Amino acid sequence: MKKSNQGETRQHNSRLILRTIYQNGEISRVDVSRSTALTRTTVSEIVAEFMAEGLVLESGLSPSTGGKPAILLRVDENARLMLAIDLAESEFRGGLVNLRGEIRHRKTLPVADLDGDAALDLVFTLVQELLAAADRPVLGIGIGTPGLMDPSGMVSQAINLNWQNLPLGELLFQKFGLPVYIANDCQVAALSEFTFGDAGSGDSLLLIKAGRGIGAGIIVGGKLIYGDNAGAGEIGHIQVLQNGETCRCGNRGCLETIVSENALVAQARRVIQEHPGTALFQRGSRPDDLSIETLLLAYQNKDPWVAALVREAAGILGSVAAHLVGALNINQIKIAGSLSRFGDALVEPVREKVQNGTLKALARHTEVGISSLGDDIVILGAASLIMKNELGLS
Amino acid sequence: MKKSNQGETRQHNSRLILRTIYQNGEISRVDVSRSTALTRTTVSEIVAEFMAEGLVLESGLSPSTGGKPAILLRVDENARLMLAIDLAESEFRGGLVNLRGEIRHRKTLPVADLDGDAALDLVFTLVQELLAAADRPVLGIGIGTPGLMDPSGMVSQAINLNWQNLPLGELLFQKFGLPVYIANDCQVAALSEFTFGDAGSGDSLLLIKAGRGIGAGIIVGGKLIYGDNAGAGEIGHIQVLQNGETCRCGNRGCLETIVSENALVAQARRVIQEHPGTALFQRGSRPDDLSIETLLLAYQNKDPWVAALVREAAGILGSVAAHLVGALNINQIKIAGSLSRFGDALVEPVREKVQNGTLKALARHTEVGISSLGDDIVILGAASLIMKNELGLS
Repeated sequence: MKKSNQGETRQHNSRLILRTIYQNGEISRVDVSRSTALTRTTVSEIVAEFMAEGLVLESGLSPSTGGKPAILLRVDENARLMLAIDLAESEFRGGLVNLRGEIRHRKTLPVADLDGDAALDLVFTLVQELLAAADRPVLGIGIGTPGLMDPSGMVSQAINLNWQNLPLGELLFQKFGLPVYIANDCQVAALSEFTFGDAGSGDSLLLIKAGRGIGAGIIVGGKLIYGDNAGAGEIGHIQVLQNGETCRCGNRGCLETIVSENALVAQARRVIQEHPGTALFQRGSRPDDLSIETLLLAYQNKDPWVAALVREAAGILGSVAAHLVGALNINQIKIAGSLSRFGDALVEPVREKVQNGTLKALARHTEVGISSLGDDIVILGAASLIMKNELGLS
Repeated sequence: MKKSNQGETRQHNSRLILRTIYQNGEISRVDVSRSTALTRTTVSEIVAEFMAEGLVLESGLSPSTGGKPAILLRVDENARLMLAIDLAESEFRGGLVNLRGEIRHRKTLPVADLDGDAALDLVFTLVQELLAAADRPVLGIGIGTPGLMDPSGMVSQAINLNWQNLPLGELLFQKFGLPVYIANDCQVAALSEFTFGDAGSGDSLLLIKAGRGIGAGIIVGGKLIYGDNAGAGEIGHIQVLQNGETCRCGNRGCLETIVSENALVAQARRVIQEHPGTALFQRGSRPDDLSIETLLLAYQNKDPWVAALVREAAGILGSVAAHLVGALNINQIKIAGSLSRFGDALVEPVREKVQNGTLKALARHTEVGISSLGDDIVILGAASLIMKNELGLS
């Protein structure tokens, strides 16, 4: 056998042991050996290396079960930090995240109207400021970006930031010398939900992120689907209305023209203009003042027009979800992004469409809910990209 | 390291070497070593085992390039047979398939109205007759079945055959003592196209099988998606018309009520009733005489009504395909099953919907075509299930 194969086996075993300790919280060397089917000698040697690196600690003794109590091991969740960034919103959000997904330090920079090189400089500044704040070794840089990625790690197109074929990963690596992992923000959000969310024990997930735009991240068999051109999850540009409005992508009737912040605001404007007696109008909203925030407020104040409007849009989202659940037999759907604050008005029509729009024998297993990770979903996902690639933890 | 790990490495290396020889057609030991990064000693040892088992042959000398010509190795495609069965049609089709996907012997038994235990007995008979005809060792039994599978290998529901929770795999293994691999017929068809078809070099595929029913097999990242409950690919029961006809699954407006043999025949009947002057009618077809065969014949005779009818149904299929291509970023769509004989009338609307119904930057990579494997697609796929699991070949 070649040496490289021995090296691969060694790395495989190391990662297996670290993952076993991580997933168990606390565990003895003997139980690691039992659970991994590796010899005690191998386990002890590799654990010793992790302890020398500070990644694993001895954390106490196991409760006595008659024999000699065993020393328990655990991963020191603060031994390393991950520098994670969300470029998808109107501000660039960054965080230093520990190995349990806790954000130990945050930094947010407003994007305003910056784009092109100026937006790139803002990313550099954000990384620099976060690195300066790190009090532990930083494992790498993880980024969730809007737009399309190239399989090689280029941002091939991010319309809002006016980036085309930007080798963001390479530029960051050259500047900071740390490993860089980049993926589309919705794909990153799916990884996040899968790693840190409460999606349960299944090994597949459809994560829908609905905010300024709408997109999805799809996990099947425990693995994120990137797609042949790294473009998996672009559900925002699936045509749902044959003669619908023209979308910024050039096609007509895309899902994004119906389910997104701007689309809902536009629909609300039409309601007010056509029905000047609506509750929305009575509360003093004028069409021009409307924003997603005023709609959310009206929804919280039980405005029936807003609820109806969200439900109608959600039905169309539900039809797209039904296509995917029907074709992929996915049992778990989670919705994230700013529109997830519409709660049941968004979730119920999706649930209903999935139940009535796919084979009942399969759909009855499917659960639809709101992600519990809130605004941090992309930052945490970017951290999990690093954790997975650098340490094999997931 | 434990012995089991050495065993796994050994199996991994064996499969890698066999696959390398298989995929290269003819190759020398030295080139196997180069291509696999395994030592020449390891390659020679493992090749000697394969030669002793008759799987690999020395097939000649490489063309001289100045030095000593090398002995070339190849897989003996007739060294083993795979017993492959397609249960999805009105007859049970079986074949003995060699390692290059050539069907060396066929046997077909009509199902007529048999179901339940009688249909099961028919499967036993088919296996028995095929085994009796085998003149080489049989690697295993592979089956493409209609209906839903259970992840454990049970046929949980096959409506036409009236099978519920039938442990088909276990029953066959007990009776014949051979390894048994079963999957849904559309999933099997996708494997088949991916292994033996002309889908090109991509590592993803959407295979749509449209005949008595309609279903799909989806391959992503080189792997077939089975789904959380082994039900991936059930696109026939995705709702495409909110107030459409009631489907045999109990829901309304399923894709199968619009794109399937029966659905097209029903649509043609309506055309004839509503437009008694149509070409279909002029050729003497009465509504009651219509079948998918008469429609196919009319289409081949350039009947514009049939072409229009197929195109309209294909547009709806195209919308479902667009959802999947948009969400999964799959570059290759192939259509199989009896309806694939409608050729361009089926393909063009699907292509058009995918182009106009998903992000252009991704859709421009997507190709839509008809499978070249014809009626043998499920048999060949069932064979590839065996080949993949027993020998690691794909």
